[in-house]
Amino acid sequence: MTAKKAAETRRTSIGAQRNPDSQDAILRAAEEILVEGGLGSFSIEAVARRAHAGKPTIYRWWPTRAILLLDVYHRQKYVDIAPDTGTIETDIFQLLSGLLEFWSAGHGGAVFRSVIAEAQTDPAAGKAIAAYMADRYQQGGEIFRRAKARGEVADWVAPELAMEIITSFAWKRLLTDRLDITPEELRLVVRHLVEGFKVQ
Amino acid sequence: MTAKKAAETRRTSIGAQRNPDSQDAILRAAEEILVEGGLGSFSIEAVARRAHAGKPTIYRWWPTRAILLLDVYHRQKYVDIAPDTGTIETDIFQLLSGLLEFWSAGHGGAVFRSVIAEAQTDPAAGKAIAAYMADRYQQGGEIFRRAKARGEVADWVAPELAMEIITSFAWKRLLTDRLDITPEELRLVVRHLVEGFKVQ
Repeated sequence: MTAKKAAETRRTSIGAQRNPDSQDAILRAAEEILVEGGLGSFSIEAVARRAHAGKPTIYRWWPTRAILLLDVYHRQKYVDIAPDTGTIETDIFQLLSGLLEFWSAGHGGAVFRSVIAEAQTDPAAGKAIAAYMADRYQQGGEIFRRAKARGEVADWVAPELAMEIITSFAWKRLLTDRLDITPEELRLVVRHLVEGFKVQ
Repeated sequence: MTAKKAAETRRTSIGAQRNPDSQDAILRAAEEILVEGGLGSFSIEAVARRAHAGKPTIYRWWPTRAILLLDVYHRQKYVDIAPDTGTIETDIFQLLSGLLEFWSAGHGGAVFRSVIAEAQTDPAAGKAIAAYMADRYQQGGEIFRRAKARGEVADWVAPELAMEIITSFAWKRLLTDRLDITPEELRLVVRHLVEGFKVQ
């Protein structure tokens, strides 16, 4: 379930009336603020002002700043989580390099770091991230389902778990400020994942 | 370089006189506060009070709360980062299960989550974590150096990078609140790492 779907479920469950127009206006305003001023200028107050919405309206849909940030991040995200290059090596290489580059350029990395940081003290944001990640593992698992059909990947490999291992590496690089990986180093990372540590 | 060593270097470079007794008293006081009251009760002020130290003294050695927390965490840590069980599978299994259990029990997990979260907005804490992790990769890389000597691990495997991949998975489980892994699931994680995704 994506953060957006989670937010929809939440809305439905509390019986609030959805209003797609102003929901979109709020997300657009939030995105503009981020693009123009970065994370430092991002607050529920600033978003309310720009979207001509009341703060209670925003809080009804996005209970915390982190949850709103995650939805904005999710909208912006254009990284292909399941590239189809024909081999498992290059699929994983493209996925990881796309992710690390997206986080390096623009505000994507700063926003996601901030959402992860805030989720450590905000259980609702923690749940939203977990739902978002489960959704991404499911989508990205397509890489492994295709590679199994080609006979390239072992039957016992669990597509979602494999995706979790791959994206964990990317998270740690983001959170320790080490996104500047060379193609050679990234190829070596992929080789560890694809061939395993053990001698064949 | 560990956070502690980083702190020592910092002290030397600013020419401050080290005083191991009161440094230890401060770390002991910080640890007691954490054990007794958890993260919520942890502040530089509370540590100063309990250690009978001045706040400026603490700030001279540990410029931010996150850096002090990382040093306390480092002192408490009793997880064996390089278990020597005789096979690479069980070494990695023990390392990961030890880490996830340490984070689940007591305050270790909450403290480390908090340090990682604060490091996202505190560059000095980010540097301290990066130094701490580099030190851990170096120590834990021993698993791979031993396994290579046994002919169990391929020559091209990079011990520090392999340790980074392994601990990244543990970090993500911590940060997404999913430490409750079953032994079966953990064995499957280890199999992915050791055998690789690709059919042999």
